[in-house]
This record gives sequence, C-alpha cells and structure tokens, in this order.
Amino acid sequence: MLSLLPLNLKALNDRRQRLQQIFPEPVLLWSGAPLPRNFRANAYPFRASSHFLYFAGLPLENAVICLADGNLDLYWDEPPAQAALWQALPPRRETIATYIGARAHYPLAELKTRRAEFATLPHLDAQVVQEQTQVLGRKVGLMESERDRALAEAIVTLRLCHDEFGLQEMRQALTVTIAAHRAGMQRSKTAHSEAQVRAAMEGVILEHHCTCAYGSIITTHGEVLHNDRYTNSITPGDLILADVGAETPSGWASDITRTWPASGQFTAPQRDLYQVVLAAHDACIAALQPGVEYREIHLLGCRVLAAGLVELGILRGNPEDLVAQDLHALFFPHGIGHLLGLDVHDMEDLGDLAGYAPNRHRSDRFGLRYLRLDRPLQVGMVVTIEPGFYQVPSILESAKTQAAYQAEVNWDRLADFASIRGIRIEDDVLITAAGSEVLSAALPTTPEAIEGLCTDEGI
Amino acid sequence: MLSLLPLNLKALNDRRQRLQQIFPEPVLLWSGAPLPRNFRANAYPFRASSHFLYFAGLPLENAVICLADGNLDLYWDEPPAQAALWQALPPRRETIATYIGARAHYPLAELKTRRAEFATLPHLDAQVVQEQTQVLGRKVGLMESERDRALAEAIVTLRLCHDEFGLQEMRQALTVTIAAHRAGMQRSKTAHSEAQVRAAMEGVILEHHCTCAYGSIITTHGEVLHNDRYTNSITPGDLILADVGAETPSGWASDITRTWPASGQFTAPQRDLYQVVLAAHDACIAALQPGVEYREIHLLGCRVLAAGLVELGILRGNPEDLVAQDLHALFFPHGIGHLLGLDVHDMEDLGDLAGYAPNRHRSDRFGLRYLRLDRPLQVGMVVTIEPGFYQVPSILESAKTQAAYQAEVNWDRLADFASIRGIRIEDDVLITAAGSEVLSAALPTTPEAIEGLCTDEGI
Repeated sequence: MLSLLPLNLKALNDRRQRLQQIFPEPVLLWSGAPLPRNFRANAYPFRASSHFLYFAGLPLENAVICLADGNLDLYWDEPPAQAALWQALPPRRETIATYIGARAHYPLAELKTRRAEFATLPHLDAQVVQEQTQVLGRKVGLMESERDRALAEAIVTLRLCHDEFGLQEMRQALTVTIAAHRAGMQRSKTAHSEAQVRAAMEGVILEHHCTCAYGSIITTHGEVLHNDRYTNSITPGDLILADVGAETPSGWASDITRTWPASGQFTAPQRDLYQVVLAAHDACIAALQPGVEYREIHLLGCRVLAAGLVELGILRGNPEDLVAQDLHALFFPHGIGHLLGLDVHDMEDLGDLAGYAPNRHRSDRFGLRYLRLDRPLQVGMVVTIEPGFYQVPSILESAKTQAAYQAEVNWDRLADFASIRGIRIEDDVLITAAGSEVLSAALPTTPEAIEGLCTDEGI
Repeated sequence: MLSLLPLNLKALNDRRQRLQQIFPEPVLLWSGAPLPRNFRANAYPFRASSHFLYFAGLPLENAVICLADGNLDLYWDEPPAQAALWQALPPRRETIATYIGARAHYPLAELKTRRAEFATLPHLDAQVVQEQTQVLGRKVGLMESERDRALAEAIVTLRLCHDEFGLQEMRQALTVTIAAHRAGMQRSKTAHSEAQVRAAMEGVILEHHCTCAYGSIITTHGEVLHNDRYTNSITPGDLILADVGAETPSGWASDITRTWPASGQFTAPQRDLYQVVLAAHDACIAALQPGVEYREIHLLGCRVLAAGLVELGILRGNPEDLVAQDLHALFFPHGIGHLLGLDVHDMEDLGDLAGYAPNRHRSDRFGLRYLRLDRPLQVGMVVTIEPGFYQVPSILESAKTQAAYQAEVNWDRLADFASIRGIRIEDDVLITAAGSEVLSAALPTTPEAIEGLCTDEGI
C-alpha cells in the first residue's frame, strides 16, 4: 500500500502549519468509509475525503485526524488480526503515524474523551455526519456553525494554490491521462462503439494504478455535456469527444478533453470548427497570469469563439456585441473551466466557496451561469481551460430561438455543419509568476497533430 | 438507454403476481440515488437496489415502485428539460411506465398522499432510509417491523429460484466474464503487473457495456481472499488468481475464478495442487441436485481436498476424520460458495435470511464459519462452487498451529509447495430437475486447457 503512495512529509507539515497560522483552533477531519454498492461487503472503491487527504496524505478508511498547533494526531483502529484472511492488511497504526508524520496516534474511541471545541467540515456521507455530530456534540456544517464556515474558508485559502507535492501528483496523473488519450485515439481506428474506446482509455488508467477522477465522457454526442453512457456506435464520419482524467492513488486529479475524428482525418467543416475552438483555447491560455480575473478569461474565450463563428458565417455581427447578448452561449453554454486539485472541480463539496471570491455570486446570464470560477488568478492555482462548440438540440432546435436570432445566426450556413455535434479542447494550466504553464502540454491540440496521433502506427 | 435493457415483460409480471400470492399486502421499494464520490456532481456509477431491479427491470434513479394486487405503479420525477444540456435524458415517464409494464405512473410527490400500510425493505443508503421513514411514518427495517421482515422472507422465497429472464441475464454476464478471463490469460504472457492483467480483463467488461459485479480479485497473492489492490508485480513462476465477474446493464451478476501460471505452464507442484482443487470442484458439481443440502456439498469438497492433500503427503490421516477436525480449513478456510443472482452474494443485504434456511445459523466451527449458504438445493437456484487451496501466513505460520498439528500436517512436505500461495477454481451452477448445469462451462478448468488458453496464439 505505502509503496504506491510516496509522501512528501515536508509539504504535509507545511500544510498543517499554514493552517494553524490562519486558523489557530483545533480541527477534526474525517476520511469516511467505503460506500456499499448492493450489500455492505460489496462496496464501491473507497475514496477518502479530499480535505482529509490534503493534510493526511494517505487514503485511510474510517480515520480521523486532529490538526492543532501545526501538528497532526491520528485516530484510527487497526483491522483485527483475523482480517488478514480477507484483505491485504494495512501497516500498523504506529507505522502509518510515522509515515505521515503524525505527532501521536490513538484508537478511535479516544476521540470521545477529547474536550476541545473542534471545527470540522461536514462529510458527504450522511452516516459520517451522524458520527461527526455525535463526537462534537453539535450540528455540523457551513450553515450550522460559524466555526465550521471559518475553517472552510481557511482550507479554501490553502487549497486554492498548490505546493510542489500537489503539483507533482497532478503531473503524475497527467502523464497517465495523456497515455490514455493516445490509446483512445489509436483504438478509434478500429473501434465500432464508444464502449470500446472507453475500455482502451480506462484500461491505461487502471494499468498505472490510477482511478478515473470522474465519470469519463467518451462520446460521439459531445453536445450532451456530461454524457457518460457509452452506448453509441461509432461511424467513420463521427467526431469522438473524450473528457477523461486519471486520479493518482493519493487522490490528485487531472482533466483533459480532446476531440478527434473517428476516421483519423477531419473533414473540412470539422476542421474549420475545430480551429475556432482551438483559437479560443489558445487565446485564453495566452492570457492567463496572476492578477487576471478568470471571468475575463471566460469572456475572452467567448469573444474569440464568436469571432471565429462570424468568420465562418455562422454568426453575424461584432464579436463583442454578440457576447454581450450571450449569442456565443447558443454554441458554448458552459464556463471556460474550473479549479483543479484533489477534486476535478476542486472543493466543489463546499459549494461556490472556493470557486467564487467573497461576495461574488453566480450570474443569471445564460452565458455566465455555469461559470464555476470567478476569482483573480493567483500563482499556484491550477485551472482548466476548456472552450467548446456544441449543437444542443434543446437550445438550437427551438422555433422560438431560431425566430429570435434570425438576424444574428445564419441558420442556413449553420446547416453546412449539421453533423458536428460537439467539440471541446481542454487543458490543465498552472498559474506561475511568469504567466502560466500548460501541465498537459505533452498532448498536442492542433488538428494536424491530432490526426497524426490517430493514424500513427508507431505508438 | 432502453436499447441496452431488453426486458421480459412476462417474467416481470410473473414476479409481481407471485409476490402478491405469498405477500398480499402493498409494498413500496426504493431504487436509491447515486452516491457522491468527492462532491455531489462527481458520483459513483449508479447501482439501483437489487430488490427494485427484480420487480422493475430498469435501473431508474430516485424511483419508487408500489407493488399491489400483482401490479406495479411507478413513482418518479422526470429530470427537468434543461437537464438535457448535461445528461442523456432518460425517456419520458410514460414511456418508461409502458416499457416496464406499469399499471400507472405518478410524480414522486404523490407518494405522500397514499395512505396504505406499506411494507418495504430498508435501503442501504442512510439518506434513502430517512425518506422511507418519512413516507411510511414509521421505523423501517427487518428488526424494526414485522411487516418488513415478512416481506423480506417473501422476496427471498421468490429470488432464491430464478426465472428464464434472470437466467438469460446471468448467461449474458457469463459470456462477457468468460471473454474477460480469456483476455486475462492472454495478457499474462507479457504482463509485468497485476494492474496490467486487471486492465485487460476489466476492459473486456467495459467494452461489452457491463460493469464489474464486485471488486475484481486479480493477484499473485491469492491467499489474501479478497485481495483487491493490484499492486504486485508478476514474475514467471507466479500463479495468477483472477476472481472477476461482469454484471449486465440491468444488474445481473456472474462470478468466475480461474488460476493460471503466469508463464503459461504449470510447474509440477503447481499442477499437483491445482489437480487437488479441481477434483474437489468437479466432485461438488457432480453432487449438486435438488434436495441435496448445500452444507453437504461443502463438506464433500472439504473431504476431497483433504484426500488430495493426504495423497500429496501434506496431510496425514483419514479425510473424513481430518474434516471433522477442521484440518482442511488450514488450507481452505472459506465456504464452498454462495447464492448468485442480482447480487454476487445474492440478497446478502438481508444478512443470512437468504443464505440460511429458517432456524439455521452460522456455525462456530472454523471449517464452517464462512459458509454463506446452508439450505437444501432447489430447482432454479444458481450457486457458485469455488474450492481453493491457500497458504495463509496468519494461519500456517503460527508456531502454535504448527505445534498443534505436528501429527496431521507434514510441514516438511508442505515446504515443497512453499511458493504456491493461492489457487481457486470457481464456476456458476444452475440447479435443474436433472441435477445441475454449469452455466460457465465454456471456460475450461483442466490444467491442460488452461495452459492452452494462456499460450494459444489464436485467440
């Protein structure tokens, strides 16, 4: 177990000490328990709470950590010796405590004897919340407790900007994710179904001791944004949109999307639209730097998309005005990206607390509603940049929409691109003092390079 | 969605009517909701409750069915139209109701207006149990409600013996599982890690639109019975134990184990022990027939194993006596198998209610403690037969054990087999009027055939 989970004790200690500096009160964090699938012994693969992982480093089941004075104490019960018959036993508690740099370690029962006023974060599992409520003797949650809310804000402050250990884990995840995308492009040469491409891509992730950071999207119907059914067949004229990311054994995520032609060759209309999305992708990445508002990056992407669609004759007008009217959102109805870290939408368990700067809230505008991040960028943040072009029937096929935008949309011209349902290009980008670094740069984005990866025999 | 889920309406109607005959009161069953992995939008793949699936046929999220008078009423809310942007929308409620042969269909809110005294089965998800408690206005559970317990007993009666539809689903799952095992054997020729073999096997399952019915066991350390870590490397002298089963889209399970030499060729000691396990496997299957006690099958398997170990010079004595003293359990500490159906341990969510006939309970004997099934066999049951031989350090390496069994175990002779850690051979068998049918017979078990599958270029 531990061999797969190389820790950086210095980083873990730094995290604990930085927490103490901005939140001096004692904290308890729960890892959680495996969730049953159809009976208790048949559980989903365990995923520890990301907040727990951030400070503890190891995905221990049924563990609690106490963070106080910059130290970590571990509360955990070793499995009974006879469990060795059924499972690969984890190391002894003492070994684990040393491994993660704990100051002390105790059986879980000791937790009930502690009398401090702890802050905590509510776990996603209702049964763990019951335990939390019992141990703390009070309601738990960001709405229920000012102490818990203050802790959440402090942890957001820490987790927004990554240390070298977190970045190293994300780089490792991306190495695997890039191999998975290459395998998917290669598999498409002969695949007849989304399911076959999925098997090839997720197979690479499993081979490398990783899991999927989220339900993969691998589909010829990219216009369904979170399409995770894999039930469609593939025909040579299709574009395949694959949004797939590996997660390392210690829980760090990656998140890449590529769109490629099933045949290995883009058709002219496919290439034209792909170039429009790529231009938006490249412009957004070029504009990333500390201090820039992520919302402005989103709007920049929208303008470049609109300009490209004007150039193709699909939209009519001035890109700036088109975006002001949310016309881009007819074809790009989601946000330009989100935070990435231990979660693929990092810290989304805390609602918009991480994604939105204090006193900012989601917009009602169609073109901004799904923006998941609205903060000035800081050195150490990792964000995704993922513009797209989609023909969503429920948006475009409404007679009301078509009538409303007769002037702005050339519906006849759009028909030339009718078979193109969804294109998205997504990379993971670190904000640096110098601007930014594309962590996923080893997987190319140009149509020529994508065609090469699809057809190259040498891979 | 529906295209992957061909239903047999006659079978579903029969199930509903047979329930009504043995349990005439009205019943509500909940399907459940997707469980969050690290935030709500990042959920584990949804698995509906097996009891729900048995009567409804489709894995609908957040659905409730009412079974009364042999009919089914569906309570379910369609996702809002704007959800089409994010997910592949399921068909309309009306379409689904027709598809599953529902008498009527309602929004979920209607449930609260129903005033009957319903029976139910407690869902595994604590949040669903809260809903159940609210809707029924009482505590829910087999210990809390005689009505619920009576329903559980009635459903066990039905689900113990499978109809043609269930069998057809299990046969479909097995076709995929057998392909996965063949792929695993082929992959072993070049694999250096358990993770690579796992990727090949689970890839086949994904390609066929199935999921894993349980956490696969694919390991060179088969002596850890539920070893699901895949962290070991593979060396040519290793045996690979793979316990892997596909589950169909409508939730039916399969469960096969094979053990093969990583090199493609058994060594002489490996083959000798493999033959002992195979003899037990074959003897148990030959003895299966209606009316026979499954516990006797278990004891038969133990005796054949003991006899084989006596023949190899590892045990000393009379097989019957050795089993009476649980000496076989030093090397075979688990039960010979279990029920199979919608769950891999069918209905284990109800504890031992399905596995143990009324008024029977788990034995304290080491050699019987882990027996999951103790009933007379009936036509239509599907059971696994899965004898094994393991060298479990926590059992065999204790000085106390070695001293206690100096007479019965030839520890020196055992040392000749030291490198052999775990062997298991598992098949899924249907009890028929004529005796039994091995549903997984298409995957051979003899060492010669296994070697052929490992090395054959033609697959």
